[in-house]
Amino acid sequence: MDITLIGAGKLGKQLFCALTAQSHFKLVEWVDRSNKQHQTAEGISIVNDLSSLKATQIYILAVSDQAIESLSHVLPKDALVIHTAGGVSIDAIQQERKGVFYPIQSFSENRVIEFSKVPIGIETKKPEDQPLLQLLAESLGAQSILLDSKQREQLHLAAVLVNNFTNHLFTEAANLCEKNNLPFELLMPLIQETVQKLQTHSPKAAQTGPAIRNDIKTINKHLQLIDKPHLKEIYKVVTSAIQKNYEQ
Amino acid sequence: MDITLIGAGKLGKQLFCALTAQSHFKLVEWVDRSNKQHQTAEGISIVNDLSSLKATQIYILAVSDQAIESLSHVLPKDALVIHTAGGVSIDAIQQERKGVFYPIQSFSENRVIEFSKVPIGIETKKPEDQPLLQLLAESLGAQSILLDSKQREQLHLAAVLVNNFTNHLFTEAANLCEKNNLPFELLMPLIQETVQKLQTHSPKAAQTGPAIRNDIKTINKHLQLIDKPHLKEIYKVVTSAIQKNYEQ
Repeated sequence: MDITLIGAGKLGKQLFCALTAQSHFKLVEWVDRSNKQHQTAEGISIVNDLSSLKATQIYILAVSDQAIESLSHVLPKDALVIHTAGGVSIDAIQQERKGVFYPIQSFSENRVIEFSKVPIGIETKKPEDQPLLQLLAESLGAQSILLDSKQREQLHLAAVLVNNFTNHLFTEAANLCEKNNLPFELLMPLIQETVQKLQTHSPKAAQTGPAIRNDIKTINKHLQLIDKPHLKEIYKVVTSAIQKNYEQ
Repeated sequence: MDITLIGAGKLGKQLFCALTAQSHFKLVEWVDRSNKQHQTAEGISIVNDLSSLKATQIYILAVSDQAIESLSHVLPKDALVIHTAGGVSIDAIQQERKGVFYPIQSFSENRVIEFSKVPIGIETKKPEDQPLLQLLAESLGAQSILLDSKQREQLHLAAVLVNNFTNHLFTEAANLCEKNNLPFELLMPLIQETVQKLQTHSPKAAQTGPAIRNDIKTINKHLQLIDKPHLKEIYKVVTSAIQKNYEQ
């Protein structure tokens, strides 16, 4: 089955590599507007101009959220068009055969992610397209899970909490270390243990710290130590949320 | 050199195990008020009553923050007394020879932590006691770092961010999963990648997500999806803090 991959951002690049490494689907063209080559090292055609795209059975849109709808308008009406965004409705796609193929993972420049470590949330408008997307996930070496739109948007929100927000806390901690001439690496065993503990404890059961102990003395001391108004706000609302969670 | 260990909480228990497994220091007595035995399997005396403690050269207080000061009053005036708290001043101890031995790690019931994965922050009032605490850390298999009071309190604050606050975000994400009949395990590869990425990217460089993209549509959608007022507050202040951090 022929596939066209549209997009060459962080996810697009990794999908490209994973698609060329499997044989169930044939990647025919790759839309990479920043690439001036005509062909990749693997012999896949690189296309800059959407109007000259060959017809394929499946189009994967690995593009920004806002680009999904307008791109789908220029693709063949009878193709299966799928996007990869956690937070965008399946109906942003105009084709009747449409789907979502959402990798529950964070992709970065210069980091290769094995798809065996990427659960993929799948949704299709037509039930008969579901096995196709399941096979696509499997071909990449990934596990798939069926997610309806509501589940997907909630999972996307949860992903923002555990990835983007957690990373912001790491950023603030790294700032505190830097300001006090301490290597951030000092915190790595603690960060790793925070995550490893999830294998044996639910996060709710694993909660520790001044907030859950209601240790007002430490909480006030920490608030005094914080210079940045935004970090002070975070400290206050997270502390209060932890206390609220364990009130009953 | 003789040691007395006071406290049998999460840290106390693990210090007990690590102290009995080394031979540079001799653990003489263990104060465990909840233990009715007279002796551990390793032959260490268990003491309930502080007034009957034998004199030793070092006393380790692995007790709650509030108990440190009052306990130090009942210990020999000429001993080296050390506490293990990240957020308590060295001067909570009354002895002239005093120190802090702060394991930068989170200890839980039913999880054995190898001390080789626990950096220990060391502070002493008398410079000549410093090598003693360094040797103590080394004997446990831990790396030590000298931290003055200011560095230690800032590091303790940073530890609250990366451990307690991060764990709270995991708790909220687990809640969202549960409410939507999704296994929390779906998020584990993403959580692991968030941490593993720190090996190659600073957290500031690794930041992604709707906040840093200034993706108002997704941010507003997420705010609508959140029922819990406390989580909504967290979403708002962390999003705003991320935006502030990358404004320049």
